[in-house]
Amino acid sequence: MAKKNAFYAQSGGVTAVINASACGVLERARTHPEKIGKVLASKDGLFGLLREEFYDTSQEHPSQIAALRHTPGGAFGSSRYMLPRPEKEPVVWQRLGEVLRAHNVGYVFVNGGNGSMDTCMLLTRLEEVTGWPVQAIGVPKTIDNDLAMTDCSPGFGSTAKYLATSIREVSLDVDAMDESTKVFILEVMGRHAGWLTLACGLAAEDPGDGPHILLVPEVRFDEQRFLAKVRETVAQVGHCIIAVSEGLRDGEGRFYAEQQKSETYGFEQLGGAGPRLAELVRNELKMKCHCAVADYLQRAARHLASRTDVEQAYAVGRAAVGMALAGMTGVMPGIVRISDDPYVWRVDPVPLEGVADLEKLPPREFISEDGFSITAAARTYLSPLIAGEDYPPFHNGLPSFARLNYVMAEKKLPPFKI
Amino acid sequence: MAKKNAFYAQSGGVTAVINASACGVLERARTHPEKIGKVLASKDGLFGLLREEFYDTSQEHPSQIAALRHTPGGAFGSSRYMLPRPEKEPVVWQRLGEVLRAHNVGYVFVNGGNGSMDTCMLLTRLEEVTGWPVQAIGVPKTIDNDLAMTDCSPGFGSTAKYLATSIREVSLDVDAMDESTKVFILEVMGRHAGWLTLACGLAAEDPGDGPHILLVPEVRFDEQRFLAKVRETVAQVGHCIIAVSEGLRDGEGRFYAEQQKSETYGFEQLGGAGPRLAELVRNELKMKCHCAVADYLQRAARHLASRTDVEQAYAVGRAAVGMALAGMTGVMPGIVRISDDPYVWRVDPVPLEGVADLEKLPPREFISEDGFSITAAARTYLSPLIAGEDYPPFHNGLPSFARLNYVMAEKKLPPFKI
Repeated sequence: MAKKNAFYAQSGGVTAVINASACGVLERARTHPEKIGKVLASKDGLFGLLREEFYDTSQEHPSQIAALRHTPGGAFGSSRYMLPRPEKEPVVWQRLGEVLRAHNVGYVFVNGGNGSMDTCMLLTRLEEVTGWPVQAIGVPKTIDNDLAMTDCSPGFGSTAKYLATSIREVSLDVDAMDESTKVFILEVMGRHAGWLTLACGLAAEDPGDGPHILLVPEVRFDEQRFLAKVRETVAQVGHCIIAVSEGLRDGEGRFYAEQQKSETYGFEQLGGAGPRLAELVRNELKMKCHCAVADYLQRAARHLASRTDVEQAYAVGRAAVGMALAGMTGVMPGIVRISDDPYVWRVDPVPLEGVADLEKLPPREFISEDGFSITAAARTYLSPLIAGEDYPPFHNGLPSFARLNYVMAEKKLPPFKI
Repeated sequence: MAKKNAFYAQSGGVTAVINASACGVLERARTHPEKIGKVLASKDGLFGLLREEFYDTSQEHPSQIAALRHTPGGAFGSSRYMLPRPEKEPVVWQRLGEVLRAHNVGYVFVNGGNGSMDTCMLLTRLEEVTGWPVQAIGVPKTIDNDLAMTDCSPGFGSTAKYLATSIREVSLDVDAMDESTKVFILEVMGRHAGWLTLACGLAAEDPGDGPHILLVPEVRFDEQRFLAKVRETVAQVGHCIIAVSEGLRDGEGRFYAEQQKSETYGFEQLGGAGPRLAELVRNELKMKCHCAVADYLQRAARHLASRTDVEQAYAVGRAAVGMALAGMTGVMPGIVRISDDPYVWRVDPVPLEGVADLEKLPPREFISEDGFSITAAARTYLSPLIAGEDYPPFHNGLPSFARLNYVMAEKKLPPFKI
């Protein structure tokens, strides 16, 4: 096997631990200089591939590569740009081939969610389309936990831990204040899958503990049933703690939140299920209601990462390089659960066909019959994913994160207009 | 000095460390059984005093009293109920005297903010009004940091640390995503004082670091100046991170947020400055904008408390008991700053007259000339307050908090209608 360079891209929404995967990729690649030359990190996700904008990670000090393990965000920049099918945009694919050939890239790592895995799978066809062969390996990542063929998605556990901890903490606050504040709502990310909202349910251990109501996209929302449950909970407990997915849907399957179409990306930028529910509670029940919208805070909160999640994110990064070295292409390191308690797992290659553009939703048996809480089966699945702490170093009271040099690799081609 | 019981109440909005003050009061009181009998903890703030609803803290195990030090919320319940002047409601005052006499209470500790310190000061007149003498000692607490005659208010440092950390983390996220998301807004608590929003400024260390714009109630908001600054920042940095106080005011001094009058408590329940700004940015600048509203999460986030803050909260609780034992009344333990770096402080008694119902606002020299950032003087003041970490114990991935027995003290009087 001739020595080739590697390409690494962060793609889609970032997480508290995607840089731990980057750390795994970079550290392992450095231990195989006989096969892997430089790792070129794409600037701003897959835009960098077309723009030929790469950071030369060989210019980074090992201590700062190591610091990526505890640094949130996406150190090299990410984006939601996905590759088109070669048949649709042959000019784009010609460019891809030229860029990767010009930089002698033989290994491509795309670190992302199910859309990014689809893009990664397409790249296995690069040789067929352009004559330049690459091994394309996906590296799983998403706070949404909706990737198929893996026990969980790196990024999920840390956000889940942050949310469940926040719900437990805020439950004590509201419990103290319920002479006035009767209802508290936390809006949680998740356009289609309710995994993160379900994880909030871990905060409740004893009867009466919050959260008292979980609202997920998988269960159609019924205002009257919801209001009755709030009323009943306030009567029994004195207050009511609610976690709601941003992607909550009404009886007709429409998003409950106000919608805002993003013209650029074709996505709907959600947000608003929480505030809208709070209005409903105030108007219909005449109760004082507080609402928090964690938004990006929940996926950036590296200060409260799950140690399990950090270890898995790092492990899939390392394993991806191992699969490349073993000659594989079109695969993703998937996490396999061997046992629940103790939580034992290993990493195996899984075919990207089984992951690309698919969404793994929580099974119905994870949600209680009334739709408002989690079952014991859900606890068994979710608990190990938030286990363990992995605090970043602090300096002057604030977390101290990686500081990279960001040296751009020299361009070898003329500019290209996307 | 005859042995008397003590009364302890948590009053006003709770914090991540008010229970650390409770811990200080209870632990110190237990070391003086020759002078202090039981500490009766009021249920639901000052409501408990009128309702004669007290928890008998002598029924709590020392390990759980110790665990209060790392437990957020208000363990005994709080409320915004404040005592009326004796002249206005003589019946209420007659009740106060009867309740405190019936339980042989000689020491009263009110743990709260400036409104609660006013209530505490009134209690120094109890003997004059009812013939039953008590020593009334305030214990400072508020995330708003607006208490006078103390270097800072216990509760502030932890919320400040949480917010500045969150801003630093989310800045990395947005930096990675700024091919699409250009603006991020964090709405921060603070009706009248911008202290917490200013503390967010600590997250920025190098040029280009977020936050790029702070909006505080002390600086009248000007939409056009704000939009120009956002546009300029996005052009220079690629994105713009903003922290805004819920109590932001427009050019005429009115709250920028939508208002919602709370009929019960006479307060305005704010919330909405962040979402309203996000709308403005989307409409006027046509930029993708995310907005987080931390709401109660920020004052409950014990998982990221400032060690300095925890130590101060505990110290003022202990000192309050010391002042009671020394025969004082009408005082509050105030924190005195002896030096900035290293941060050295001590606790001295200060008269409640100097604290009650007053608001300490940030001095103008803490805010940059353009009103959008903090000065070096502000950093010098703020930095030590968020210094150090003090993680709670975790169990199964979640923080483990105090579990009290909550044994009610026997009532000795007929019910009273407030």
